[in-house]
Amino acid sequence: MRLSPRHPRYASLRVRARLANAHRHGVVVPEGLIAQGRGEAFDYLLGEQSSPSARRAERVAAEWLLAAHHPVVSVNGNVAALAAREVAALARAVPGLAVEVNLFHRTGPRARAVARALRAAGVTRVLGVRPTATIPGLPSDRARVDRGGIFRADVCLVPLEDGDRAEALRALGKRVISIDLNPLSRTSRAADLPIVDEVQRALREIVRAAGARGGRASPPHMRPFDRRAALADALATIARELSRAAARGSIGRPRRRASRRRSRGTGGRSRRMP
Amino acid sequence: MRLSPRHPRYASLRVRARLANAHRHGVVVPEGLIAQGRGEAFDYLLGEQSSPSARRAERVAAEWLLAAHHPVVSVNGNVAALAAREVAALARAVPGLAVEVNLFHRTGPRARAVARALRAAGVTRVLGVRPTATIPGLPSDRARVDRGGIFRADVCLVPLEDGDRAEALRALGKRVISIDLNPLSRTSRAADLPIVDEVQRALREIVRAAGARGGRASPPHMRPFDRRAALADALATIARELSRAAARGSIGRPRRRASRRRSRGTGGRSRRMP
Repeated sequence: MRLSPRHPRYASLRVRARLANAHRHGVVVPEGLIAQGRGEAFDYLLGEQSSPSARRAERVAAEWLLAAHHPVVSVNGNVAALAAREVAALARAVPGLAVEVNLFHRTGPRARAVARALRAAGVTRVLGVRPTATIPGLPSDRARVDRGGIFRADVCLVPLEDGDRAEALRALGKRVISIDLNPLSRTSRAADLPIVDEVQRALREIVRAAGARGGRASPPHMRPFDRRAALADALATIARELSRAAARGSIGRPRRRASRRRSRGTGGRSRRMP
Repeated sequence: MRLSPRHPRYASLRVRARLANAHRHGVVVPEGLIAQGRGEAFDYLLGEQSSPSARRAERVAAEWLLAAHHPVVSVNGNVAALAAREVAALARAVPGLAVEVNLFHRTGPRARAVARALRAAGVTRVLGVRPTATIPGLPSDRARVDRGGIFRADVCLVPLEDGDRAEALRALGKRVISIDLNPLSRTSRAADLPIVDEVQRALREIVRAAGARGGRASPPHMRPFDRRAALADALATIARELSRAAARGSIGRPRRRASRRRSRGTGGRSRRMP
């Protein structure tokens, strides 16, 4: 189907088409498409933009990754489909960053398809295609990781992660930075540094902040991060957008469509909320 | 993957597995899976239960369907996957109700797969597999309907409908009853009677209410419905759940998991919101 740029939801329709396409190529599983929908809903409620609080979290994330001994970013099918280029940029911006394929629904061909997508986007070294270690506390395949990657990492960036796995990584004493649009998800609640933002926007801001620090750890230690305040801010943002929406009938910036509304002869009945 | 009933999100994981399976059988398209995710997020924010306001809307919907000359329920892939049995029960409860397959992403095999799922659930007559009319104002395949079904209907029940189509039906002067978990969606805003509830729960309540009226139009006219109040109630429910969640760290009823939490030796750091 051809998408019209005049459609009120053009941007998210494009992302959806991209995900559906990645699904056809074996990169994204059906469950990943459902997860994308959940993310979309929360992004919509957040006004589809990075909040000041999320941007602060992204800058601290850049510092933590730069200060880490063994930083790693975990990449699943949705991350590869949505933000492979941003992952490649992050690997360039953070010296020593390991990039590891880590799949909830793992098959060999799928792990290779995700790795291919990452390499095509410019990631030079991809771990996790043939896992060499197991993290305790998780059933079967979901626990399989790379000994030189997630297994030994001190700081793990886990975009769009499953709650069980985020909790298992934290239980191993790793510092977990999550990117998850749901401030109430188990992943967001388990993370040391929960970033409540869309994955592309979040990674771009982390890359920008790491670049601004010249790729060097500055400050050299990991600044404390108030995770509760970050999650409370995200909930407050949603609540604010909702009360605005209740007054106006839609969320976020006014859509282009608004100027194209025609009268539909409904006998004076109001068809929309004011 | 085997699902554990002890998982904190067991119910929604089961629905997800069901949708993913329907997708493998050609009933649900990738875009339908993404839409399911959006619905899940809103249901989560609504506390995963029917609000009193939604139940009122469902009872009025039953009355409208019973009072209609040509009531129709429009069924797409997600509706067939999630609630084929409820659609069959509705067809038994509302005399003369037409059941019509109506797909956004239409192919012949897919229309037949949806019709098969409906028949397997007990629907005796399924319209829309070979469309015989076109509704104006919509591009190509999305406009194709049955002349004896949606085309001539005076009351259309459209669960999980696309915004463009809901608006096109309204523009034709039909009374539109939507079932959509997003109170801000274009579908909810276009409908004469927006039901903000999960499709299975909504259909079951409509069936129950129609049954309680013995399948007869009572009252014989269509009672007015305050659509603005219904949408405002849904937004207020979400806002209330969010402020509760902000205080507690999760939405809805306490999960079973809560009693299984172990100490994870995080050196006294709080891992969750209180």
